[in-house]
Amino acid sequence: MVTRNAQSKLADAIAESGVEPELVDSRNFKAPIDPNSVHQGAVLEVKPLRWGGLADNCIGAEVPRVLLLDRVTDPHNVGAILRTAEVLGASAVIGTRHHSAPETGALAKSASGALERQPYVRVRNLSDSIVELQNMGFIVLGLDGEAEETIEAALEGRQDRPVALVLGAEGPGLRQKTKETVDQLVKIDAAGGFGSLNVSNAAALALYASIAR
Amino acid sequence: MVTRNAQSKLADAIAESGVEPELVDSRNFKAPIDPNSVHQGAVLEVKPLRWGGLADNCIGAEVPRVLLLDRVTDPHNVGAILRTAEVLGASAVIGTRHHSAPETGALAKSASGALERQPYVRVRNLSDSIVELQNMGFIVLGLDGEAEETIEAALEGRQDRPVALVLGAEGPGLRQKTKETVDQLVKIDAAGGFGSLNVSNAAALALYASIAR
Repeated sequence: MVTRNAQSKLADAIAESGVEPELVDSRNFKAPIDPNSVHQGAVLEVKPLRWGGLADNCIGAEVPRVLLLDRVTDPHNVGAILRTAEVLGASAVIGTRHHSAPETGALAKSASGALERQPYVRVRNLSDSIVELQNMGFIVLGLDGEAEETIEAALEGRQDRPVALVLGAEGPGLRQKTKETVDQLVKIDAAGGFGSLNVSNAAALALYASIAR
Repeated sequence: MVTRNAQSKLADAIAESGVEPELVDSRNFKAPIDPNSVHQGAVLEVKPLRWGGLADNCIGAEVPRVLLLDRVTDPHNVGAILRTAEVLGASAVIGTRHHSAPETGALAKSASGALERQPYVRVRNLSDSIVELQNMGFIVLGLDGEAEETIEAALEGRQDRPVALVLGAEGPGLRQKTKETVDQLVKIDAAGGFGSLNVSNAAALALYASIAR
């Protein structure tokens, strides 16, 4: 669906795509999209992204790094996390099927192109996935501001191992079951007295700190 | 100004503050605030935050770290940067007087309490401030995805020195004059082939990478 204005702006892309768009008056442009997503007069129906399961995405990288999100529902944060995960070379971002930010336009915009590149795998049960990753040889670290040890200390001499980092939503943090399932709780070094980091910044720092250099 | 609903919810805080709020019908609640800021039925007029100049904020910390923002206009990004700067112990965030995100409710919300704690100093001319910091003994590094050297390499053996990190807006990056004034252009290690980081994530990683551990 396009407005006349969008049709003329996107003329080249439309011609190249081979798609025949439905022309809709801008006053009647009621696209079936998430209300928080900006459409700018053009909407395209696409098939869902199918990334497959954990094993399809978490095995084979040179330095396997995976992020797990324990009920992170804010699409801007999840979008920013996908973007940073892609830039820093992570293999996948794992979220729960329920209580996670869905793949809306708002998420796609924050991801800035990474939504189609970085696998965003939604699983039924996060604890089961943590166990599955442990069975694949991953060290699974849960981020917790109250933890004693830093990520660097926990990975000392083991930074060549596959590592999965689990982050909770701001406020609630990790669920009890998640805390009990991970190999170890860790904190971000240098994060001092004042409050906590935004979850996308925490994910970026955790990923960075886990990579040997 | 409060709505009746906000007045009853905030009764304790209002009593403690000694302020006599103006009660306004929620249908006529036209507070003179930024239209992108959520007010939830309560608005308080406050004096501007006065942080003073560079020397007031950038001297005296044990490990002085300062972020400079070259025309970063998005309030969510600047808010997230202030929050992370505060958590990681930076001394100040410097922005330009014009073409920077102003201290709106949207910025305050993203800063999550850090707006009142982390100095956000607005200067007339960023290049002049870079020179001023250099004269105070700061190593001033400009972030640029095209740079050859990483932050860690540039600071090798000098991480005890005061360091200022300059970040540009997403898209335009650093202005030419800024690039010419900094001591060196640097990149974030491990940031690979795909696109660039969101500016608040880049600021978090740059700050983290600049701190000796």
